[in-house]
Amino acid sequence: MKIKFLTTGGTIDKVYFDSKSEYEVGPPQVAELLREANATFEYEIESILRKDSLDLTDADRALIHDRVAADPCSHIVVTHGTDTMILTARALTSISGKTIVLTGSMQPARFRVTDAEFNLGAAIAAVQILPPGVYIAMNGRIFDPACSRKNVANNCFEEIS
Amino acid sequence: MKIKFLTTGGTIDKVYFDSKSEYEVGPPQVAELLREANATFEYEIESILRKDSLDLTDADRALIHDRVAADPCSHIVVTHGTDTMILTARALTSISGKTIVLTGSMQPARFRVTDAEFNLGAAIAAVQILPPGVYIAMNGRIFDPACSRKNVANNCFEEIS
Amino acid sequence: MKIKFLTTGGTIDKVYFDSKSEYEVGPPQVAELLREANATFEYEIESILRKDSLDLTDADRALIHDRVAADPCSHIVVTHGTDTMILTARALTSISGKTIVLTGSMQPARFRVTDAEFNLGAAIAAVQILPPGVYIAMNGRIFDPACSRKNVANNCFEEIS
Amino acid sequence: MKIKFLTTGGTIDKVYFDSKSEYEVGPPQVAELLREANATFEYEIESILRKDSLDLTDADRALIHDRVAADPCSHIVVTHGTDTMILTARALTSISGKTIVLTGSMQPARFRVTDAEFNLGAAIAAVQILPPGVYIAMNGRIFDPACSRKNVANNCFEEIS
Repeated sequence: MKIKFLTTGGTIDKVYFDSKSEYEVGPPQVAELLREANATFEYEIESILRKDSLDLTDADRALIHDRVAADPCSHIVVTHGTDTMILTARALTSISGKTIVLTGSMQPARFRVTDAEFNLGAAIAAVQILPPGVYIAMNGRIFDPACSRKNVANNCFEEIS
Repeated sequence: MKIKFLTTGGTIDKVYFDSKSEYEVGPPQVAELLREANATFEYEIESILRKDSLDLTDADRALIHDRVAADPCSHIVVTHGTDTMILTARALTSISGKTIVLTGSMQPARFRVTDAEFNLGAAIAAVQILPPGVYIAMNGRIFDPACSRKNVANNCFEEIS
Repeated sequence: MKIKFLTTGGTIDKVYFDSKSEYEVGPPQVAELLREANATFEYEIESILRKDSLDLTDADRALIHDRVAADPCSHIVVTHGTDTMILTARALTSISGKTIVLTGSMQPARFRVTDAEFNLGAAIAAVQILPPGVYIAMNGRIFDPACSRKNVANNCFEEIS
Repeated sequence: MKIKFLTTGGTIDKVYFDSKSEYEVGPPQVAELLREANATFEYEIESILRKDSLDLTDADRALIHDRVAADPCSHIVVTHGTDTMILTARALTSISGKTIVLTGSMQPARFRVTDAEFNLGAAIAAVQILPPGVYIAMNGRIFDPACSRKNVANNCFEEIS
């Protein structure tokens, strides 16, 4: 089973440029994370955006939708900033016949302590097992974007009760 | 859904004691890994053995079997050394009505570069989604212990063709 | 010999707040770095500012000067952002009878790959050995602030030739 | 000023071979540590032994002595296991006209939490500043090997009172 990774930016890919004393979205970290995890399944990585998810526009979301829909692969992991991950996930629910899992991280993958590897591992297991549909893999749980949200105060995802 | 972690030792839990210039199985790393990953599901961790998996005896495997079988939780992750993980997994296949996922790592969780978080994330997603049965989560894949093995030369798990 | 650490912020202390998708100066990392390095000398840590060094004002520099001058300890390490480290160092040269070493890092201490521990180790050795005066410890070298600068393009300190 | 690094093995260079479930002395970590620290001084690295320091023989110590003595560089850092670091340092005291600093680490450089970068930074500052002689840089302190020892119980170096 081949997995396609589409990367859009977000905290998971943030790097630090000292020369500007700023923190910016860098190249996708997925490739390095998979190499370090000694992943042995077939995969392909494509960077389609490099943005903080708060900066994603409707046009960006349309682009993500079209790239996922057009992709020949039926198992797709989208790495994404957490702030609007739910919004993008909902924009993908019209796509049928594909298992699509969105994930990201609360701390950049380059940090010594980060949830990036853990979330990526969960997303990869989920995308291989779940039936077609759109899912969020965060905090060790699998969420249905139709009835979940990011709890900004607690810095985690949760179901809407 | 509550997940029970039963830890048995293995590389994932190896620490380094400089005073003896040796590398030994330490306390379970799962608790710290889950905290760092900001896991929000309900869980419980129990350490039942602290051994290199090459040192596990038939009695140890019987103990693991009995603890898994007796546990009230129906979703169980067993952390385990990789060398005999398949053997222990096969010893658990007689247990019905539970989803059991074994995982571990090739590099200790305390290393800067390790597959521990990634494998744990994959195991946790798998144990929540898969139907009752026994599975191995390693290298970003889900294996059936009946037809898989550790490829020692390539340092990864693979299907027996 | 007792060493006093005065922390002023800078990249070394930067943390990431996912809730704001921003990167800010957090609490001083020196305490944790010294604990992890198993440091056994006598020391005291005092946080006097928490700023990006580009944001330091003349009043801030006067404050740093006064705190260093008034400190009873004669061996002082100042952690500081790199962009104006030279400027602050020069503002301290009027203080006599104390060995003062400024250091910081190009990558935050919380990153997996960072120069923070290395620079701190160098600063600590330097402050114990060097005669009274003001020094910069960066890139594995000891600089005289009177004739050195930060090379922003190369992201390192260098002598002015 | 050029610094020569002579590596002899020890905990600092230990890696983990999962295929053997063992922990062994690997290639010298100094090169990677210096690259990560963005070191800008001139240096050269030479691996002369790859041993746990408990396994060093008199012949090994004679070899280290001869290599240090013959080296054209007058500023030398020797990375070394901690258990017999003092012994090797004492064997080098007959060499005149060179500043020689021995260092190593209590936790392997490849660990997420390690004293390797910190100790290396301290050794590098010390070797540039100190007059000719033989020194130990550990725990953020500079020791005279004639009157210091490793305290195995406390896992640190200390002066002999």
